[in-house]
Amino acid sequence: MFTQTHLLGIEPLHPLEITAILDRADHYVAMNRSEDKHAEALKGLTQINMFFENSTRTQASFELAGQRLGADVMSMAMQASSIKKGETLIDTALTLNAMRPDLLVVRHPHSGAVDLLAQKVNCAVLNAGDGRHEHPTQALLDALTIRRAKGRLHRLVVAICGDIAHSRVARSNIQLLGKMENRVRLVGPPTLMPSAAADWGVEVYDDMRAGLEDADVVMMLRLQKERMDGGFIPSEREYYHRYGLDADKLAGAKDDAIVMHPGPMNRGVEIDGTLADDINRSVIQEQVEMGVAVRMAAMDLLAQNLRAARAEAADA
Amino acid sequence: MFTQTHLLGIEPLHPLEITAILDRADHYVAMNRSEDKHAEALKGLTQINMFFENSTRTQASFELAGQRLGADVMSMAMQASSIKKGETLIDTALTLNAMRPDLLVVRHPHSGAVDLLAQKVNCAVLNAGDGRHEHPTQALLDALTIRRAKGRLHRLVVAICGDIAHSRVARSNIQLLGKMENRVRLVGPPTLMPSAAADWGVEVYDDMRAGLEDADVVMMLRLQKERMDGGFIPSEREYYHRYGLDADKLAGAKDDAIVMHPGPMNRGVEIDGTLADDINRSVIQEQVEMGVAVRMAAMDLLAQNLRAARAEAADA
Amino acid sequence: MFTQTHLLGIEPLHPLEITAILDRADHYVAMNRSEDKHAEALKGLTQINMFFENSTRTQASFELAGQRLGADVMSMAMQASSIKKGETLIDTALTLNAMRPDLLVVRHPHSGAVDLLAQKVNCAVLNAGDGRHEHPTQALLDALTIRRAKGRLHRLVVAICGDIAHSRVARSNIQLLGKMENRVRLVGPPTLMPSAAADWGVEVYDDMRAGLEDADVVMMLRLQKERMDGGFIPSEREYYHRYGLDADKLAGAKDDAIVMHPGPMNRGVEIDGTLADDINRSVIQEQVEMGVAVRMAAMDLLAQNLRAARAEAADA
Repeated sequence: MFTQTHLLGIEPLHPLEITAILDRADHYVAMNRSEDKHAEALKGLTQINMFFENSTRTQASFELAGQRLGADVMSMAMQASSIKKGETLIDTALTLNAMRPDLLVVRHPHSGAVDLLAQKVNCAVLNAGDGRHEHPTQALLDALTIRRAKGRLHRLVVAICGDIAHSRVARSNIQLLGKMENRVRLVGPPTLMPSAAADWGVEVYDDMRAGLEDADVVMMLRLQKERMDGGFIPSEREYYHRYGLDADKLAGAKDDAIVMHPGPMNRGVEIDGTLADDINRSVIQEQVEMGVAVRMAAMDLLAQNLRAARAEAADA
Repeated sequence: MFTQTHLLGIEPLHPLEITAILDRADHYVAMNRSEDKHAEALKGLTQINMFFENSTRTQASFELAGQRLGADVMSMAMQASSIKKGETLIDTALTLNAMRPDLLVVRHPHSGAVDLLAQKVNCAVLNAGDGRHEHPTQALLDALTIRRAKGRLHRLVVAICGDIAHSRVARSNIQLLGKMENRVRLVGPPTLMPSAAADWGVEVYDDMRAGLEDADVVMMLRLQKERMDGGFIPSEREYYHRYGLDADKLAGAKDDAIVMHPGPMNRGVEIDGTLADDINRSVIQEQVEMGVAVRMAAMDLLAQNLRAARAEAADA
Repeated sequence: MFTQTHLLGIEPLHPLEITAILDRADHYVAMNRSEDKHAEALKGLTQINMFFENSTRTQASFELAGQRLGADVMSMAMQASSIKKGETLIDTALTLNAMRPDLLVVRHPHSGAVDLLAQKVNCAVLNAGDGRHEHPTQALLDALTIRRAKGRLHRLVVAICGDIAHSRVARSNIQLLGKMENRVRLVGPPTLMPSAAADWGVEVYDDMRAGLEDADVVMMLRLQKERMDGGFIPSEREYYHRYGLDADKLAGAKDDAIVMHPGPMNRGVEIDGTLADDINRSVIQEQVEMGVAVRMAAMDLLAQNLRAARAEAADA
């Protein structure tokens, strides 16, 4: 049972809601692999994508998800928008809201901006990444990838490695994997490890071999240099030597451990290119595929709740 | 009865044609508020949007309008286009025309550019704003907003306030409100008032309290600094003090006067933010909603005329 | 019979395959001129456009073609994409491929990039122009335009004029016209004539009057200054004097010779503006119209082969 009206983060979700999204997503994986990858679940509805940060893969994934479900989909290039004319985030959102979208997909550089926006509009809002806060559909697609590869999504040892400090992907994954009763390890240099990590119910490592020992899942993160304004920026070569994933560092993990990366990858920085392409270990391409299916599932379930709430309001 | 083949401005429209568009738009307002906001009135037709000036809200509004009516909709980012390779406006238009669109929506920085273009193509052209000339769908959405708020669109006192000189919105509204037999006042500093205003059949004021007295509708305009090349640019603080709308200046208008703004707003420059958000006075969000409906109505009616003209040509 | 799984260039096509595309395109020309220009040949399929070089007309043409055939169509602005974050072309392609497109339309500044990409993905790839290599849909639309104007596509004298050196359009046209048994002449200044041209089975001229004598078709090329990095750049005035097409130079061609240009045109550089607009000689607008139809035909035929191959794989 999925009872949410928005998808703002993993934090508010009940484990059964996570399972409901993943189950629905499995259905859409099958559809997207079939000869007819177009359905009508969102027919008659309008989806607007507001990306205040560029993102090829996430925006493309949401666009395709909406189109394949029959929605009228419109993507706004917010950099080129009225914001330049002095309009505020809230005014822009209220303007789009007045066009009566049903689903509003928002990416924003500031943590909390999407939550704020959701309070102002009367449609379902999906967080496509807000600052360092959450990126729930990424965690859900990672979860679906793991569940399909491992046959379960509990009692796994998952090592999340690299630039934890700047990563909303890490935050959403820690939440989700914790709710589903997995053991989460964070592995990275102390300079890229948030001081609060000790309170998150995770184990913290600064050594890759120790952190990866007996892991079922090794999840690499992108080194987000563009967010390291003023802070410490490691040399890529030194970083790869100590924290880049290669066959050698992976040797201590379980024999069937899978390797993940949310993309876009910096080959030779976070991960060895050959390992990234090794279809026996790497599920990186499958993550992208699961991304479309998870977004279809989330929008489908949110639209069902939206329709039910409106029908109830109309009856009252 | 709407007999036009293009929508280039308000000037050529008969009052009955304005009413025909607004009546059809009321139908689409209801549809856009219902559970199924997708129709097939433009099914089988192609709509191309050519925006030579950026505009979040107008382009989005036309895109959604076309999608919701089932057209194949394509938006061109004209800045990034062949124009850079030395192609002229007319060549670009003829190129798109050769792709056999049925509806061509054009915004252009030069007054008259859209009229010129309409003579070169064989489809219905909609002016989405040309220089300082006209912006007919804005005037129509304002008219629909007024008619729904006031119950009529005649014998009203409408004060249009602010940067009249640079405003195609003002020009189209003056035309429309005059045709429908309303009393139009222009209020603004002499430096932003066109010298020709005296010949437009309107009353001209440079004092807000005098201009707003007993007004039914107060329509604020955006201060268009980007168009004031070389001319006088008022300080925002001084401008707000004398011409920015606040509760105090509004006090002399009718008790049920509505407040409008075409957006994007400069809060604290043209209008007090609290007033802009006051749902008892401000209809600014409703204007945006009416915008989608009015564009659906205009494209629907133009497409009907286009189909009729083609059928007639085929018979001959 | 069209048996290809990709459309990477004209070089691999059998003459019967060229004819199959043109025949199908004739069908879509008629549809695009009718009252209902929307079909369902690509219904249930996903088309992704990846343009690593800007192109108004080609991208618009592919977008419209896909939309009119009922595909879910998504265009990626690749300049604004993950490439900035350090991702390689292949990673970007694999990412999009994981979203399970059926048709991938690619334009890229490097010759051979599209072929490379086609080896990595499991969908039909269409080359929308790669470096100086090929631009097959341009050659096909030129062929369709010629066939419709001349009633045949063989035993014609075709003069291709201007900046041959930088032109993938010329390369693809030389291939296609040769396969269909036409006589091809290349006309241009020696500085813009590739040294290899002597081996291409064409006649080479550096004088326009000699090259155009008794020609059935005069195909002008755009002077591609943006590709002449470091090389010789002719003055536009001198170039027009010697190689720009005007009525005088055209006088030696056949009386019913047609004039073509792939666009965007530099009027007064490659071609006299009056001649370009002369509907008795110029078929430049018709080329654009044929472009949409040829792209519809190519995607339709590729999709048929894709579906057949998948059905076969599913049976095996």
